This record gives sequence, C-alpha cells and structure tokens, in this order.
Amino acid sequence: MAYDIAIIGAGPAGLSAALNSKIRNKSVILFGKDSEKVEKTKSIKNYLGFLDISGEELNNNFKKTLEGYDIERSEKRVRTVYAMGSFFAIEVENQDEMIEAKTVIMTTGIDLKKDLENEEKFFAKGVNYCATCDAALYRGKNVVVIGYNEEAVEEANFTSEIVGKVTFVNMTGRDVKLNENIDLIQGEIPQGFDGGLKAEKLIFKSGKEIEADGFFIIKDSSKADRLVPSIKMEDGHILVDKNMASSIKGLFAAGDITGKPYQIMKAVGEGQIAALTAASFLSKTVE
Amino acid sequence: MAYDIAIIGAGPAGLSAALNSKIRNKSVILFGKDSEKVEKTKSIKNYLGFLDISGEELNNNFKKTLEGYDIERSEKRVRTVYAMGSFFAIEVENQDEMIEAKTVIMTTGIDLKKDLENEEKFFAKGVNYCATCDAALYRGKNVVVIGYNEEAVEEANFTSEIVGKVTFVNMTGRDVKLNENIDLIQGEIPQGFDGGLKAEKLIFKSGKEIEADGFFIIKDSSKADRLVPSIKMEDGHILVDKNMASSIKGLFAAGDITGKPYQIMKAVGEGQIAALTAASFLSKTVE
Repeated sequence: MAYDIAIIGAGPAGLSAALNSKIRNKSVILFGKDSEKVEKTKSIKNYLGFLDISGEELNNNFKKTLEGYDIERSEKRVRTVYAMGSFFAIEVENQDEMIEAKTVIMTTGIDLKKDLENEEKFFAKGVNYCATCDAALYRGKNVVVIGYNEEAVEEANFTSEIVGKVTFVNMTGRDVKLNENIDLIQGEIPQGFDGGLKAEKLIFKSGKEIEADGFFIIKDSSKADRLVPSIKMEDGHILVDKNMASSIKGLFAAGDITGKPYQIMKAVGEGQIAALTAASFLSKTVE
Repeated sequence: MAYDIAIIGAGPAGLSAALNSKIRNKSVILFGKDSEKVEKTKSIKNYLGFLDISGEELNNNFKKTLEGYDIERSEKRVRTVYAMGSFFAIEVENQDEMIEAKTVIMTTGIDLKKDLENEEKFFAKGVNYCATCDAALYRGKNVVVIGYNEEAVEEANFTSEIVGKVTFVNMTGRDVKLNENIDLIQGEIPQGFDGGLKAEKLIFKSGKEIEADGFFIIKDSSKADRLVPSIKMEDGHILVDKNMASSIKGLFAAGDITGKPYQIMKAVGEGQIAALTAASFLSKTVE
C-alpha cells in the first residue's frame, strides 16, 4: 500500500508537515533523524510562543505535539526518490523493496559542509555517493571511500567484497571496524580531486595524494538534485512556488532546502503549507 | 525620527515580524489589536511545540515572547500607508502627524466579511471608507454612514459638523451616542448600493432604501489595496515574492494577507521572513 505522504527529513519543516498531514487525515511515513542543528542550539529566542528555549527542549516539544498521531517513522537514509508518474518510489538504504507514496515532501534541510574541490565536476565521473548502488562499476578495481558517518563503514566493508581494493579515509571522528583487506587513512583531511575526463586522484590538505579508479563520498545528507533526479533547482535549493510545489507533480518541499532564511519558524510555516498543498493535491487525484 | 520597521497588524504574522525585527536590533512600531480570530479559537492542535492550546493561551504565549523587547505599540487604526520613495508616511486615525518608517510590513490579515453589493463598483464614486479624509467632498449634502465599530460613531459625529445631513446606520450591535442632528437607522441590514455613474442609494435587505449623495462604510479592517495605494494584488491578496517583498520597494507583507492557507504557522513563518528581509533591506539602504 502506498502512503499518502512520504516526508523526507525530520527537522522542524518535516515535523510540521507530518503534523499537518495527520490533521488532514493522511497516512504518513516520516524519514530521518532528529535535527542535529536544532538539538545542538543552546538558546532559541525567536520561536514565537517560547521565551528562550534550548533546541533540545524545543525539539522535544515538537515531538510531543506529534505524539498520539499515527505516523510511521524510519531513520533509514533515503537514497533516491523516483517520480513514477502517478506515485513515487523511494529507495532506502539496506532495504530491498521500495517504499511507495502518492506524494512526497522534501524537508532534508541544507548541507552546509562545503563540497571538496572538483567534487561536483567529477560527480558520476569517478565520484559517487552510493556504494551499494555503484560498487559493481569498479569490480576488480581500486576504490577510495571517504566516510563521514557510521554507515560509511558498512558501505566500505560491502564494497570491499566486490571491488579489487578499498582504501577508507576515516572522517567519522571515531575508530572504525573495517574488513581486514581495507587500507585505512586516518588524520588526513581531503582537499579535492584531480583528473582528466574522470577523477583520478584524491588530494589531501597535507599534499599527500592517493590514486584510484573510483571514489565514494559517504556523508549524511545528499544534495536535493542527487536525491530527486531531474528536480529543478535554483541557487542550490529546490525551486518551489508559493504553495511549496516543486517542478515535479506531487512533490513538495519545505524548510532550509527551499532557500534562506534558514530559520525554524520559516521551516514550520513552509512545512504546514506543503502538507496542506499535498492534501489538496491528493483530494484532486483519482485513487 | 523614522522607525526602522512599522508593522501593521498584531496577529501571529505581525508578532513574529516584531520579534524577528527586534532580534535584528531594529526600531519597531507595531499597530493593531490582538487577533480576534486567534483569541476566539477554542483549540489549536497544529502549532508545533504545543499539544492542544486555546487561541487565547497561545496568543498570551506569543506576547510573553515579546516581553522584554522595546516595541512601541499603537492600537490606533492605520488609514493609509504612503510610499514616499525613501520612506513611508503612515496616516493614523485621530492623529494629526504622520508616523514615518523606513520600511513597512503589512500583516493586517484578511477581511472575511463580504462586501455589500456594488460596493467595489462604487468605491470612490460615492462610496468611501474615511470620513475624516473625504467628508469635505459632501459639504451641504446628504451622507449615510454605515458604522460597524465604535470609531464609526466619532466619524459620524465629525461628519455631521461638515456635511448637510448625516444618517447613521448602526451596525455596531450597541447603543450609540450620536450628535442630535444625526438620523439613526437601527435594525436594518444593508444589502448593497444602486445608482448610475455613482452610488445613489443604499438598499436594505428588508427592501427599504435610502438616497444620499455619499456613503461612508466604517469597519475595522480595510482591504490592502485601499490601505496601500497602488500596491499590486493577486486574487485579493498582496502579491509577494518568496522573500515577502511586495511590488513596492521597502514594503513587505506576511500572513493571511499574502494568501492561503490561513494558518498560524504559515503566518509566523512569513512574519519571520518579512522581518529578516526588511532588516537586510535596511542594511543596504544608506541612512
């Protein structure tokens, strides 16, 4: 059964979209973890209704508002959202079957980490973001995995079973448990890529270099246009109209991902609009 | 001294705009009374951060958030906002001098009361909204004042000193204290206007009619395009871009007045955006 609304991202915009979707009696799946950005904020003085509240407490209040509503939650990472015409197929990490939804609301926020040099240039030309999807391209070859999160370790281990040789650049800030056949680089900070038609080497800030046939960057948030193929962007944000509708029919967006200001009230306001627009879209669609 | 930001309307959008303006250290004047629409709502379940809260309590929380900020408040009605190029002149009821502000944020909400029949058609052709401004046009003539609020009584009394004859249609729901030379119509509900090139008579639902040279409708909220001459509208709402900027430079809008959904989170989100855009506009303006 397809969900009425899949919400991708559980920050303020996503929670607001979930709340308003439920108030409109829609079935909802909400992907994502609690917003780190909110949780880490010590003092929030500009959320109307509260005087001065920590991000953690505000987020707890947000979640309390959602208690009592039947919302399916998943903390798994969404890889790709495919627009299938009359519905969306959502590819999720470590899960064989796709999740189906009639509409999607993108609330993944914005990744403020800067890209590596030439990362964009070599995207899909030796630089990839999904080892599970693309490791097979490098069968018998040398691959570097630049890992920023726990999941990257799993991806590296999986990849090492398929490709010739894996080198793991550990950016997780923790010790990692890698398969024995994986080389580990630790204490080096990646600067960028170099190459001709495709990425050929990763250069570190120290000046050190490593050559490989393929490079995987595994980090928490993906750029919207990698997550949703062919979606229209503007200045790095999903282009939306005033109803939060994107260029793809049935797909909406809210919060930081639609543009500045990167602020909580703006995010919850847009989450509300997106949910109500999605609900209205659903009521016009023949089931 | 001109205020940095004048906010017209003290509902959720206006309060949010005021809060965010102060956080950006701008001088602020906030016009308007507490939102009746919010105050009268018994249960609000879709304001993220609260589980189920009455409108009155939510509004009190909103006001508590603003305590401690130096915000000038005025409950006087704003008649007209004039764009003077580098600043705005705000005409306020019962006040001789204009209020000046470098930027304006319109958050007056939307008037859901329907117009009288032909009211729009005869606007400025015998139908007016400001007796103080236009009574002089009817020197020695017959005028009907259709009064929905307390202020209408003052306007009628003032008008009776200037024009030939005033008839007051009492829609205030209360007894009114009129000058002796004013005729009172009570218990009749206005239906609309009739006339040729200009409004010539007011017709009541009962079928009763009254002829006059001019008609004043005095009610609480005015339509945005009457409040701000020549502002661009769309479907009855102020046309804004995604930064809440209107067609007039330095004038912004937020909340119900910019369009549906008429919802509180949407309003506070837009209030935040409008304030931040205004602050950024001010920082680019040479003082």
